[in-house]
Amino acid sequence: MEKDIVVVGGGPGGVITAMTAKSVYPDKSVCVIRQIGDGVIPCAIPYMINTMADPKGNVMPMGGLEAAGIEAVVAGATSLDPAAKALALDNGDSVKFDRLVLAMGSNPAKLPIPGADLEGVFTVTKSLAPLSELVAKAQAATNVVIVGGGFIGAEFADELAQKTGVNIHLVELMPKVLQAAFDDEFCDEIQKNLEAQGIKLHLTQKVEAIKGDGKVSSVALSGGQELPADLVIIGIGGRPNTQLAAEAGLRLADDGSIWVDSYMRTSAPDIFAVGDCALKRDFFTRKAVPVWLASTATAEARNAGTNIYGIRVLNQIQGSIAAFSTKFGDTCYASAGLTERACEREGIRYVSGSATAPDRHPGNLPGASPMRVKLLFADRAGALLGGQVSGGDSAGELVNVIAMGIQKGVTVRDMDMMQIATHPKLSSAPTVHPLINAAHQALAKLRGK
Amino acid sequence: MEKDIVVVGGGPGGVITAMTAKSVYPDKSVCVIRQIGDGVIPCAIPYMINTMADPKGNVMPMGGLEAAGIEAVVAGATSLDPAAKALALDNGDSVKFDRLVLAMGSNPAKLPIPGADLEGVFTVTKSLAPLSELVAKAQAATNVVIVGGGFIGAEFADELAQKTGVNIHLVELMPKVLQAAFDDEFCDEIQKNLEAQGIKLHLTQKVEAIKGDGKVSSVALSGGQELPADLVIIGIGGRPNTQLAAEAGLRLADDGSIWVDSYMRTSAPDIFAVGDCALKRDFFTRKAVPVWLASTATAEARNAGTNIYGIRVLNQIQGSIAAFSTKFGDTCYASAGLTERACEREGIRYVSGSATAPDRHPGNLPGASPMRVKLLFADRAGALLGGQVSGGDSAGELVNVIAMGIQKGVTVRDMDMMQIATHPKLSSAPTVHPLINAAHQALAKLRGK
Repeated sequence: MEKDIVVVGGGPGGVITAMTAKSVYPDKSVCVIRQIGDGVIPCAIPYMINTMADPKGNVMPMGGLEAAGIEAVVAGATSLDPAAKALALDNGDSVKFDRLVLAMGSNPAKLPIPGADLEGVFTVTKSLAPLSELVAKAQAATNVVIVGGGFIGAEFADELAQKTGVNIHLVELMPKVLQAAFDDEFCDEIQKNLEAQGIKLHLTQKVEAIKGDGKVSSVALSGGQELPADLVIIGIGGRPNTQLAAEAGLRLADDGSIWVDSYMRTSAPDIFAVGDCALKRDFFTRKAVPVWLASTATAEARNAGTNIYGIRVLNQIQGSIAAFSTKFGDTCYASAGLTERACEREGIRYVSGSATAPDRHPGNLPGASPMRVKLLFADRAGALLGGQVSGGDSAGELVNVIAMGIQKGVTVRDMDMMQIATHPKLSSAPTVHPLINAAHQALAKLRGK
Repeated sequence: MEKDIVVVGGGPGGVITAMTAKSVYPDKSVCVIRQIGDGVIPCAIPYMINTMADPKGNVMPMGGLEAAGIEAVVAGATSLDPAAKALALDNGDSVKFDRLVLAMGSNPAKLPIPGADLEGVFTVTKSLAPLSELVAKAQAATNVVIVGGGFIGAEFADELAQKTGVNIHLVELMPKVLQAAFDDEFCDEIQKNLEAQGIKLHLTQKVEAIKGDGKVSSVALSGGQELPADLVIIGIGGRPNTQLAAEAGLRLADDGSIWVDSYMRTSAPDIFAVGDCALKRDFFTRKAVPVWLASTATAEARNAGTNIYGIRVLNQIQGSIAAFSTKFGDTCYASAGLTERACEREGIRYVSGSATAPDRHPGNLPGASPMRVKLLFADRAGALLGGQVSGGDSAGELVNVIAMGIQKGVTVRDMDMMQIATHPKLSSAPTVHPLINAAHQALAKLRGK
């Protein structure tokens, strides 16, 4: 087979690179090679357990590729020859390409401890078959231990808590859940939320061993506790999938991801990489950061797809921001950019402002719940560094005002006098909107500096 | 009485100017003089009829003023002497000021036709007493005619439609409802929504006369139809409340509003004006525009309050954008910046892009509804000119991403590769997010130009 553009990987990064390239270069032939034939929408995996009527409802739609005239092949790529511009597949085929995009994602980490391979212990993969097995087990489970209090672990816990008659234990190495995305006051709010749903939190705990005879029966924690378990879900991050790239001699970055420039170009001519497998540089520090979000991958995909036959759009992605939202129980939590924790770690001086208001006005309207916004600004430049939100469903888009603000260099003064839309049934009052008031609080602190 | 800062007007613009000035200049004495002792939250007036259990629930909270150490006085201002820096009140008092802020709002227009003063005909004021009377009439009404298909009229119609046994007629002079805020496809969607609720639309119709013997009994339209009516609500805009300013010799703008500079300073030294009574310049054309939104007023208020003792924050409001959201039935509609209609009127060349996707992912998740986004960009500069959104409740904050984008000069390329937060339960998928895809559609058109 020979194609102008070959994309390896059928996740969001791969699919959107292919779609973008085909839309910008309609005369080029484009092919997506995906190892996983039954790939699912990654962000929605936890919701296959209960929220979705049928796990099959989460299959990644691939019809868009075909409709766009893009060929899709299910096969694994086994080796890459950058000089010959050829890719070998595990079905024996070879593919010649003019441009190649590696969108190979990440592999979930396994716990390097005894018992990690027992029956009933799952890492979170992205294909339907093993996930359907996980869903079936989860539906029958009585004692579930989730290892990892990041967003995947916490979302699984939240989703399992919708079921009755199941004991849920969430084990986290760090002092708080979701510590990478939120500051303590939001982590504490999330922890209360999870605990109110009956989820038992085990913080600053390491899993020492998973025990059982063939099948898992318990999980031993560093603190000495032993949790009964008929299902264990491991959500402790992973590693970028770079074996193919490394073996082909492509440069890897310090964090093990595939090195790319501002246009997602690897060290090899005409080979690009996007998504979890590709290097991301933090928006403010340029340090490597593992922002493994589908939304980040698709932004990179649009960058790669647009620039694949010569750079046409300059410096559009000036660095990665982690823009993130989730929902536990009835409350949404969202974050974009740097937290206080991250600022302190990186030595970035900041001021913060926080404000809360009902997300309807007046606050006695039906459906009102408190919307809480925290914003961080650089203490001299006044540039928006990051923000965190909790509240009703509209927090999921409110955080995107913050995400855009970071990317466009919004300052604390911009935000203080920003013109926004408000409506009694849809938002906080303009007089007390927490996005504006958080900026105003930060300004008051800046005046004191 | 003598105060450093006197604010005339107790609406959102007046209150936030006072609060901001007091927070920036805590040593200054601040006083708010409001004519309406029982003022309500203006945006929520339609929802007093049905959504709120009690109309009193919409009283404008004034506790924040007192808590901030700001005096509040209920009185009307009868004359202003800019040279003497003195204001006469209708209670006989005189107030000396060092800085004055006019936040006197607008007065609703009356229909200049026979019968406009009949019992049962209401304009929409902002005080509780007449509104409570309107609410009581509305709750007993069988035939309601609403004159004016702008957002106030349409919101009243939507709110009345929640009641059973009431015939609702909405009369609009223009060919579409909400034509100032939306393009035809959105207006059409809104009209279908209102009609599905049983509201009868009468477009391109003028009200010729309101008939009745003491009390209203019918409304005669220019097309010849006569609509039975026991309640008529007039929502046809109004006039800036400028009598005091004009009599004091302050400069008025061409559109009749109080002329102000970029810092809300009037032509008289040390006198500011904010909100509906003050001149607004369109963000793109600098022409006078009547953007009478509470959110616009509060942005101006923060500008005036911050800059009231010398300009400290330069050019923060570069022009007014109408950023607006509303909800009819279960669907939200929102708009920010210019529409196609406005671009054509102003001779601004543009490209548009439109995209629709479910606001959950996968789209089969509970609560999913279609989110539709239309974006307009300048055809060479690529700058974001405006956007319109329809969909679930999160449209109310999604439009603020667009509002911020306009104010910060976001381009079509920025938007195409914007990093955003997405979540299965909160937003469209990152692969098909309509905000991004609308930009991508516009880009495709730009390539063809």
